Amino acid sequence: MPTAAALIIGNEILTGKVEEANLTLLARELFGLGIELERVVICPDDAAGIAADIRRLRHRFDYVITSGGVGPTHDDVTLKAVAHAFGRPLVRSPELVTKIREMVGERCTEGHLRMADVPEGADLVSTPEVPWPSVVMDNVYVLPGIPRIFRMKLPLLRDRLAAGRRFYSRAVYTMCRETDIAEMLDLVVAAHAEVEIGSYPVMDGDYRVKLTVDSRSRTAADLAVAALVAALPTDAVVRVEGGRSSSGAAAAAGSH
Amino acid sequence: MPTAAALIIGNEILTGKVEEANLTLLARELFGLGIELERVVICPDDAAGIAADIRRLRHRFDYVITSGGVGPTHDDVTLKAVAHAFGRPLVRSPELVTKIREMVGERCTEGHLRMADVPEGADLVSTPEVPWPSVVMDNVYVLPGIPRIFRMKLPLLRDRLAAGRRFYSRAVYTMCRETDIAEMLDLVVAAHAEVEIGSYPVMDGDYRVKLTVDSRSRTAADLAVAALVAALPTDAVVRVEGGRSSSGAAAAAGSH
Repeated sequence: MPTAAALIIGNEILTGKVEEANLTLLARELFGLGIELERVVICPDDAAGIAADIRRLRHRFDYVITSGGVGPTHDDVTLKAVAHAFGRPLVRSPELVTKIREMVGERCTEGHLRMADVPEGADLVSTPEVPWPSVVMDNVYVLPGIPRIFRMKLPLLRDRLAAGRRFYSRAVYTMCRETDIAEMLDLVVAAHAEVEIGSYPVMDGDYRVKLTVDSRSRTAADLAVAALVAALPTDAVVRVEGGRSSSGAAAAAGSH
Repeated sequence: MPTAAALIIGNEILTGKVEEANLTLLARELFGLGIELERVVICPDDAAGIAADIRRLRHRFDYVITSGGVGPTHDDVTLKAVAHAFGRPLVRSPELVTKIREMVGERCTEGHLRMADVPEGADLVSTPEVPWPSVVMDNVYVLPGIPRIFRMKLPLLRDRLAAGRRFYSRAVYTMCRETDIAEMLDLVVAAHAEVEIGSYPVMDGDYRVKLTVDSRSRTAADLAVAALVAALPTDAVVRVEGGRSSSGAAAAAGSH
């Protein structure tokens, strides 16, 4: 099954000046495609460091998606780092120079033209949503950090990434505390190897713990939910989400 | 100067089920202490993987702060991973067993007592804000993922981490576009080696680009701000933040 890593670039995030705002969206997008996001790294605007990260991540995972560091200023070093990671020079793309000259006309400066510098051999990929092309270099997808543009560029991933088998997700909300269900969970986890079970306590809400079930197999997901619901005290199940229908899942569980 | 890395643990973040909510707060806390947060890694609930990350990060950075994966359920594997990273067993702490028995009395189950399992040799550190102790193992600080508790535990870092020299931060908000100031910024960056200059465009707001200046030297920060303000068209400076006073910084710049 395909795997991915995200590399989020920017001193502003590491100093807390700017709140990271692309990760959750990217994570959901990949999950929806059936691609496992296995690692996220947040690193400073340092070309050598970014290049080393890209090299490492792209060999370990099927896809690497970067966010941030594309722009014309001194702290935008992602494309330089991608070039470096692939042992290629940064070259000025005639295609992008033409686009820039069309956009800014006579105001065009060296600052504008820097936006045309891309790693030699990179693909320039456009989608209907965003006229400005994105750089794709082998399995590395270079996206901008600005959340609104990042979001607009996500269809690129939908189009290009080979989707895996989808995940089936379920959730059981319960009034039980984690300490009271820890041993029961161990047993369910052991008996249901084909699912991932997560346990997330909250401090405010109409439930105490959310139990999540993810699986590539719909049947396996439904069976695990049924086992959880059957093992919990009836009045401690607040609701079940996902599955054929909430009541359906609960009914299947009830018949155990 | 002291450096730090954060290791954020949890499948729920990598699948987009839960939005990461501790990083910005941690980043600001460390920045305020003069500690450079140089790397953030987000990884799944996999004990062997977490142990490998901890081992790598703790040798490369002065401090490692982990978030998440402490609790009694099967997907809470951080303490096991910390033990593994240090080549120590997980042992049941009599001190914590006593605390748990005091808290839950006769309801006490194996699920509760799991919360008393800590890496052999770990420090158990309490702060007045949170009665439940945190595990500190050499330079690794283990914090819980639940944002409200994570936040309550931050004073622990304030007390224990050797603070660095503080950062002085300034910001210049401008109506210029990044492409128009990229070359000017290069010159200012080259002439002001003691500061970090960042450039952050926004799509909505009363400015187009926020230029940030951080330095361990107050004088260096003020000089860089003055240089930026002097180099920007007067009517393109929306405001200056930080420094002796906004107007002070602007006045200093004006005298160039």
